[in-house]
Amino acid sequence: MREINSNDIEVMIAAPFVDTQTQAELLTALQVLLGERGVLLDPSECERYCKGARYGEGKAVAVLRPNSHAQVEELVRLCVTFQQPLLMQGANTGLVAASTPDASASIFVVSLERLKQHLVIDVINRSVEVDAGVCLQELNEALLPHGLFFPIDLAANPSIGGMIATNTGGAKLIRYGDVRQNLLGLRAVLLDPAGAVLDLQTALRKNNTGPDLKQLFVGSSGAFGIITRAVLQLHHLPRQTATALIVPRDQAAVLEILRIFERDCGEFLSAFEGISGAALQAVMRHIPDIQNPFAPEVCPDYCILLELSSSASQDTSGIVLDALLMRMLEPLLDYEVHNAVIGRGKDLWRIRHSISEALRYEGTIIAFDISMPRSAIVEFRAEACAVIQANYPWVKCMDFGHWADGGCHFNLVWPADAANTFDTKLVQQLREQIYDLVVYSYQGSFSAEHGVGPYNQDYYQRYTSDVAKHLAGKIQLLVDPKRLSGLTWFGCT
Amino acid sequence: MREINSNDIEVMIAAPFVDTQTQAELLTALQVLLGERGVLLDPSECERYCKGARYGEGKAVAVLRPNSHAQVEELVRLCVTFQQPLLMQGANTGLVAASTPDASASIFVVSLERLKQHLVIDVINRSVEVDAGVCLQELNEALLPHGLFFPIDLAANPSIGGMIATNTGGAKLIRYGDVRQNLLGLRAVLLDPAGAVLDLQTALRKNNTGPDLKQLFVGSSGAFGIITRAVLQLHHLPRQTATALIVPRDQAAVLEILRIFERDCGEFLSAFEGISGAALQAVMRHIPDIQNPFAPEVCPDYCILLELSSSASQDTSGIVLDALLMRMLEPLLDYEVHNAVIGRGKDLWRIRHSISEALRYEGTIIAFDISMPRSAIVEFRAEACAVIQANYPWVKCMDFGHWADGGCHFNLVWPADAANTFDTKLVQQLREQIYDLVVYSYQGSFSAEHGVGPYNQDYYQRYTSDVAKHLAGKIQLLVDPKRLSGLTWFGCT
Repeated sequence: MREINSNDIEVMIAAPFVDTQTQAELLTALQVLLGERGVLLDPSECERYCKGARYGEGKAVAVLRPNSHAQVEELVRLCVTFQQPLLMQGANTGLVAASTPDASASIFVVSLERLKQHLVIDVINRSVEVDAGVCLQELNEALLPHGLFFPIDLAANPSIGGMIATNTGGAKLIRYGDVRQNLLGLRAVLLDPAGAVLDLQTALRKNNTGPDLKQLFVGSSGAFGIITRAVLQLHHLPRQTATALIVPRDQAAVLEILRIFERDCGEFLSAFEGISGAALQAVMRHIPDIQNPFAPEVCPDYCILLELSSSASQDTSGIVLDALLMRMLEPLLDYEVHNAVIGRGKDLWRIRHSISEALRYEGTIIAFDISMPRSAIVEFRAEACAVIQANYPWVKCMDFGHWADGGCHFNLVWPADAANTFDTKLVQQLREQIYDLVVYSYQGSFSAEHGVGPYNQDYYQRYTSDVAKHLAGKIQLLVDPKRLSGLTWFGCT
Repeated sequence: MREINSNDIEVMIAAPFVDTQTQAELLTALQVLLGERGVLLDPSECERYCKGARYGEGKAVAVLRPNSHAQVEELVRLCVTFQQPLLMQGANTGLVAASTPDASASIFVVSLERLKQHLVIDVINRSVEVDAGVCLQELNEALLPHGLFFPIDLAANPSIGGMIATNTGGAKLIRYGDVRQNLLGLRAVLLDPAGAVLDLQTALRKNNTGPDLKQLFVGSSGAFGIITRAVLQLHHLPRQTATALIVPRDQAAVLEILRIFERDCGEFLSAFEGISGAALQAVMRHIPDIQNPFAPEVCPDYCILLELSSSASQDTSGIVLDALLMRMLEPLLDYEVHNAVIGRGKDLWRIRHSISEALRYEGTIIAFDISMPRSAIVEFRAEACAVIQANYPWVKCMDFGHWADGGCHFNLVWPADAANTFDTKLVQQLREQIYDLVVYSYQGSFSAEHGVGPYNQDYYQRYTSDVAKHLAGKIQLLVDPKRLSGLTWFGCT
């Protein structure tokens, strides 16, 4: 359920006006370039490219579907010449409306879904060259026979290009890093000079030969050019994991358990996820085939999903993670840990992955993708819950998150059976109160892993310093002087 | 021994002319701002700021030594107003002449050695806020009581600001990443608007709120502004290590040993350093108190220094790295591994760290700091040695390097007793041949971890694409429109 639709979003782009006749001329040229299936004009065919996974819904004049690098280069040249605004789209799984057109019906969507011919694995270098349109699951299927994977762990199946434009993080960042930390090289098509190829397609872990220009494109929301290929660092697939659901003595104990695990088996720690009691109860209430891993009728106030993993085989290395986890937990029981269940990873992760679905049964979700220093989480949770309780007592805190990397999905639910009906303006006010708390009181971030797009453009303006916006805007105008690319503006307004 | 002195380096900066009277006026204002010890003018006092650790020697008009952030901001405002060129300097340990003045005697060195008041550790967040002038050893001494460290491992003792400007890598990159991967936040003083503070000083692991502007300053050689503070991610100090010197069956076996170790105990692998037989022999020959770890009179053709490390205590975790290393090596013996010595880490690392000193006894070193995909190293070494043998048969290949991250110090020695005397022009030709091979044939880098500075400005021009140089130059002019900062130019010439 969406609490804001795209019409509420003030889009910061001043789309140049392209008259209908000129646009028709451009479309004819693009049809010659991309072929019949390369240019979609029929609104029913365009529809699926025009609605975001969570927010954003608009209209595109056309959807362009290049299937080669040369086509991308030439279409950029044509569109820039005609001053035609473009919106880059991968698998359209983003959560900030950055890859769906606005309501102006003036934009061309450039979908890279057909740009997926190239996928070359270098097993010795643990790297892969991959076209931007390849999706995460496709990539990981191709890597499976080699015992390798690209370790960004998330529920959706985004394209590699989209993952770079968003700098996806996910649940295993503490072990493997985010997309940025696994990006070795990149190829992008620039808007200025129009269609020029910025070829940074190297597979190097150490390379300090000037400013690292590929960093510009990471987390850019597609505003700086079109990413057409990436070189990614790969990791060995885990061959064993050990997973536990742990009930901490109290909130302070969460951080102590994290510290002890990081110090004494941090090398294997691949997830350390917090789940509030309310979120856990919602899962037990609404997802029928999930068993309560604790004694029936007992639901803890808080729990931690902890995972150790390794590509080591038990036989060769002698490393046995189940035994290690038991050994680590035992001395903590009745001290930092009130209770713990060591279980099948798949079952325990299902609880974590069912939270969003379960929350929808409770009412309308008010989602937050925030982060802060780990040292701030306990105090923030207490203060934020108190703010909600004092000002919006009918709203329920049902948060969960990635403690180890400071990420927090501080999700709230406006219950379906609340006395007052869902109020967009009030939610907006609540949202700003929470963001103000995160950013001003806890030096945190209003967007941990979803990036910036039209959905949180206003928050970008509010929480970014003028000096930073001034510099970011100058860079954006430098790479896109006519403001033709994307719907996100990083400069001052 | 230096084979190129600073006079040979064509510096790409067109220093604006500041007349003597105007400069005197500026210096008076700076003396008021920085105090007497904050402005050094006496050539004998300036001397130590004017000579690089390996390359570069020039003259500074003055050395400015601010000891507060406000002083840095105000001095930048003054110097930009007077169009006075500045050169940022940390501990002056760089190897590409980026922090030493040129011979023009027109530049002011800005030394941040006194900007080291702030050092605030957040143990729970595993992070530290630190002023740019603090040196690596000072930082690690402050972190020691907390069992934490900043894990960039190198022989020198650079300042934190300098490490960011260089994006230092070191010998443990495969385990901990480079500076970029451990940089959470940053504070920089900009040249435009002059003296403006870009405050990105957050301690967040997940933060995707627009283009990550701090990336601009990483590896910038000080050309984009003055880094005054950093927020760094820390790691738990190892409490156990296991180290071996391994003789591989042949070069192909090196990569197979690496693959097996990465898969079966990759979590603990903290170094995987190659040492050529020639380099090892030089150490045995010239460093008197280092024992040959293999049988006397036996010196292998090649060996690998392998290190496993962990912050886990053996008691708590049951992880025993010595046993793990033995267990891993045993099945490889007589298959991939010809011989192996498990020894005291300190002794085995001393061999590795004595190579540079030993090579100096052999003659004049022609040093390379290159990198390539790991899959290319075997073939590159063979081809590069053949090139040397065919064209410069008196030059000895005595290379070593970081196989796991693709870094290679392909160091050559022009023997002191060679028939022909050291010839700078011939070395220049040799150097280009090797770089051409690295970059064009093996998709490698001409500067893996030392960065770009006047020393390799020409190579930057040669090996960087016009599209990349055009973009980098535009960005440099955007942050430094008057070209006042540093001696490195990233644009086209």
